[in-house]
Amino acid sequence: MTELKNDSLIRALLRQPTSRTPVWMMRQAGRYLPEYRALRASAGDFMSLCSNPQWACEVTLQPLERFDLDAAILFSDILTIPDAMGLGLYFVEGEGPKFHKPLRTAGDVESLQIVDTSRDLGYVTDAVTLIRRELNGRVPLIGFAGSPWTLATYMIEGHSNRDFTRSKNWLYQQPELLHQLLEKLALSTIDYLNAQITSGAQVVQIFDTWGGALSDAAYREYSLAYMHKIVAGLITERDGIKVPVILFTKGGSVWLEAMADTGCHALGLDWTVDIGDARRRVGQRVALQGNMDPAVLRAGRHAIETEVSLILESFGTGGGHVFNLGHGITPDVDPINVGIFIDAVHRYSESD
Amino acid sequence: MTELKNDSLIRALLRQPTSRTPVWMMRQAGRYLPEYRALRASAGDFMSLCSNPQWACEVTLQPLERFDLDAAILFSDILTIPDAMGLGLYFVEGEGPKFHKPLRTAGDVESLQIVDTSRDLGYVTDAVTLIRRELNGRVPLIGFAGSPWTLATYMIEGHSNRDFTRSKNWLYQQPELLHQLLEKLALSTIDYLNAQITSGAQVVQIFDTWGGALSDAAYREYSLAYMHKIVAGLITERDGIKVPVILFTKGGSVWLEAMADTGCHALGLDWTVDIGDARRRVGQRVALQGNMDPAVLRAGRHAIETEVSLILESFGTGGGHVFNLGHGITPDVDPINVGIFIDAVHRYSESD
Repeated sequence: MTELKNDSLIRALLRQPTSRTPVWMMRQAGRYLPEYRALRASAGDFMSLCSNPQWACEVTLQPLERFDLDAAILFSDILTIPDAMGLGLYFVEGEGPKFHKPLRTAGDVESLQIVDTSRDLGYVTDAVTLIRRELNGRVPLIGFAGSPWTLATYMIEGHSNRDFTRSKNWLYQQPELLHQLLEKLALSTIDYLNAQITSGAQVVQIFDTWGGALSDAAYREYSLAYMHKIVAGLITERDGIKVPVILFTKGGSVWLEAMADTGCHALGLDWTVDIGDARRRVGQRVALQGNMDPAVLRAGRHAIETEVSLILESFGTGGGHVFNLGHGITPDVDPINVGIFIDAVHRYSESD
Repeated sequence: MTELKNDSLIRALLRQPTSRTPVWMMRQAGRYLPEYRALRASAGDFMSLCSNPQWACEVTLQPLERFDLDAAILFSDILTIPDAMGLGLYFVEGEGPKFHKPLRTAGDVESLQIVDTSRDLGYVTDAVTLIRRELNGRVPLIGFAGSPWTLATYMIEGHSNRDFTRSKNWLYQQPELLHQLLEKLALSTIDYLNAQITSGAQVVQIFDTWGGALSDAAYREYSLAYMHKIVAGLITERDGIKVPVILFTKGGSVWLEAMADTGCHALGLDWTVDIGDARRRVGQRVALQGNMDPAVLRAGRHAIETEVSLILESFGTGGGHVFNLGHGITPDVDPINVGIFIDAVHRYSESD
């Protein structure tokens, strides 16, 4: 394999010192970029873009052409697994993802097949292989998957529903059925992430977008336990280099200690927690990734630079910090402000 | 004044022992009750119901006719203050609250008048007076208001917007303008809650529905600081009896220690935090109110009784617990399950 020219992301995730704080952004390949919107328009719908390795590769690399980012992240969607299970993923503009065949009965869960990535999701691993080749060691490539609980909410609701009515009905009325579903999703995700790693992903992140909707006890039993299982099932090293795992529960600030106990290497933080407090809570167990509110990117240079320096200062020195937003960048951000942001992270952390 | 026959809510909020754990529910007077839906249909729109003291009184008392609740809560809306400021509150079925004249400019904020409750919101204090008379000391009456930050988000967005785009643009781009608005809202709220107390509210709760959308630093500066100011400005005693203040930030589990430092008497908890952990974190400073996920009320007797007993057990003995949901009861709950819930709280806490 080509040697990695910029390994600061990997080093920071393993809590090793770096010359400056590495930075990437969730949804860095996305709608705020005019070149993304142009390619998306010619591709037709979102899934056509995801499922074509050439296009997925092109979109993945777009932000790296503009900005001095320390990582690429595979352009894909967390719902590729349920789609591969036969639920029929589609997107309606402005309404988010939907499924043609949401889960309704115990029989629906019973008949779900655990995903075999090489058979069902070859377009994803093909994209990973292609991106690694095109990156040519410039920065590491991050692979990802959704958490089982997060996938389950979409599969049960059939669409975005921030009240999680049906999913919570399963949880409190048919817990065994939900466990059966989560088990199948966890096994599918282990296979999926390991296939991404084998194809070239150098870091993986698990996105638990909706864990924060759960009670403390339910989070531990229905979300964290399955992420724990996934972490335990992942390939830990590739070509003699560790493959760090990042766990990110949006709205999960209260559970950082428990998340750190899963054996993952780093925690993604949303913006509700002070990163210095988070560091004191998790101690030396994990690195931390985050955590600027993406809303700051709509403001001007002064606000962006102020927030970046406050977060860097709160984290402090000693390594183990990957700068990021607390959630995905929004489509209304001016790319000029992204340049200011990336530059501020690098400059301010270098002068530390 | 008539003596209070059931003072367990007040005692628990002041961390005094009670013979059983008191319980009430956020939105206990609401759409899950057929008698509410009937009155609402004859009243026309939601604001007609709120602004008519006889109807507000009738709705407030409805759940007490069915259930052995330990408190009544004034039937009203957090947006009465912005409405009184002239923004023109209205409700569209299924879309939540809206304003005819949302705030757009510095001039809009400049021209806002601080609310004088006796002049602008007499219908609320009239309702409080009437409800107290009708309650006749049966249980205490809780008054309430929204937090300044929560009110500001609706006033700036003009409608419900869980991304808070415009509000956060103000926060990061025009912080002084936002502070000016929050100051006017805090002063209005002090006047409003003191008028409720003077008219007969025996407890007050501040609902910070959207504080959880903020970064740690922004929460402290733009939400908590103004709730702190309100707590400091409230009447502390009425007829020789303390008037406890409850702070509730939805999504605020990470900030409990800071909230407890405001001088309030109790914290409302959403369901993301284990109530025993919360108690260890805040120590003897405040009582705790919560914190069952309302989704449990859609499940059957077994799930409800299990959750109630887990929460009671986690809190432990010694007083200072008011049982509640972690957010408002949803319209799809069968009232029979509410009866099971209230009964379980009382029975299980009595046998402790």
